[in-house]
Amino acid sequence: MPIASTDLLDSLMWRYAIKLFDHERKIPTTTWEALEQALVLTPSSYGLQPWTFLVIDDPALRTELRPFSWNQAQITEASHLVVFLARRRIEDRDLDRLIIATAAARGLDPEQLAGYRELMHKDLVAGPRSARIDLWSSNQTYIALGNFMTAAALLGVDTCPIEGFSPPDYDRLLALDGTPYRSCVVCAAGYRSTNDKYSSLAKVRYPLEELIEHR
Amino acid sequence: MPIASTDLLDSLMWRYAIKLFDHERKIPTTTWEALEQALVLTPSSYGLQPWTFLVIDDPALRTELRPFSWNQAQITEASHLVVFLARRRIEDRDLDRLIIATAAARGLDPEQLAGYRELMHKDLVAGPRSARIDLWSSNQTYIALGNFMTAAALLGVDTCPIEGFSPPDYDRLLALDGTPYRSCVVCAAGYRSTNDKYSSLAKVRYPLEELIEHR
Repeated sequence: MPIASTDLLDSLMWRYAIKLFDHERKIPTTTWEALEQALVLTPSSYGLQPWTFLVIDDPALRTELRPFSWNQAQITEASHLVVFLARRRIEDRDLDRLIIATAAARGLDPEQLAGYRELMHKDLVAGPRSARIDLWSSNQTYIALGNFMTAAALLGVDTCPIEGFSPPDYDRLLALDGTPYRSCVVCAAGYRSTNDKYSSLAKVRYPLEELIEHR
Repeated sequence: MPIASTDLLDSLMWRYAIKLFDHERKIPTTTWEALEQALVLTPSSYGLQPWTFLVIDDPALRTELRPFSWNQAQITEASHLVVFLARRRIEDRDLDRLIIATAAARGLDPEQLAGYRELMHKDLVAGPRSARIDLWSSNQTYIALGNFMTAAALLGVDTCPIEGFSPPDYDRLLALDGTPYRSCVVCAAGYRSTNDKYSSLAKVRYPLEELIEHR
């Protein structure tokens, strides 16, 4: 059953980038599990899912990451912290992984998907997009970020997306060097503090007429 | 009021990239207006909203775009077609636009936001991110794409994200050359055809344990 559009828009109006989280208030396990499922269900180009989502539970690791995040309090104060990792490259083995998973889920022989594999190969491995694959994989990962923030707002969970961090230092602290993944973007999640003065500020959006044009 | 997590996950499970839209079935005006509002409410870095959303209503223009979109039927058959435009560069005038809008919405003197303006300037106009501003602006635009697809699914509207198109040809046909915006990604919206054989295929996702890691 679809939800009412007022529920959607109320949630999106309620959402803002939290500056000060309530450190004492944790996201309930069942709610967090739903948000993990929402991440898994994120759409991606070709269905390739070129990402991993690192949930940083360890307070000591969060404390280590904070100075490499413009010292933003959300890194240590939010209930949950997710580092969105993007695949560095797309290689034939990544295509095989998807083909095998697809064949298994749909009761097919992988050979029946050879054409699909070739399409991806010509685009992402050997084709025009391979030269800028970091752009492509970042873009996909930002779909996950957008989906996550909207899903969280609908469940009454606050978020703060964070681009202000040092990817090389994150990669080092998270032991990503030499792995197929790199840190791409970060998002904190939890509940706004009653002391967050930003919660009472008017939302700033350009008028719809400036942002949407019909042709 | 938050929605139930089952409603969220049911919608995300129901969603898939539509191959064949029901050409006869149009999105009701009130539903579409809510989706436009959802686009406007998309979060962006610094709140800069570096995008425009072109809704292509003209069937003749859609027919012109289709051959530059791998001839995909969704371009002409879907109820609605959105071309997501990303800002080519971020310049000081873009910062001024946001500062003026923020000051107006919050009853401030723009001078009070000088520090915020300087922060953006040092990052996006003169700083490290300025060298790869197309990556940054694409990423922001993909947040809008993710938000849009999730919002649509929750309202019972089907979508198909489309990266398979020629941005230079789109820019030409949409008269974007020489403007501050470039075509970034496309999304069709409407309702699945009962003849879309993809609607009955199992969704393919890697196991949660492979996609989400706790540290």
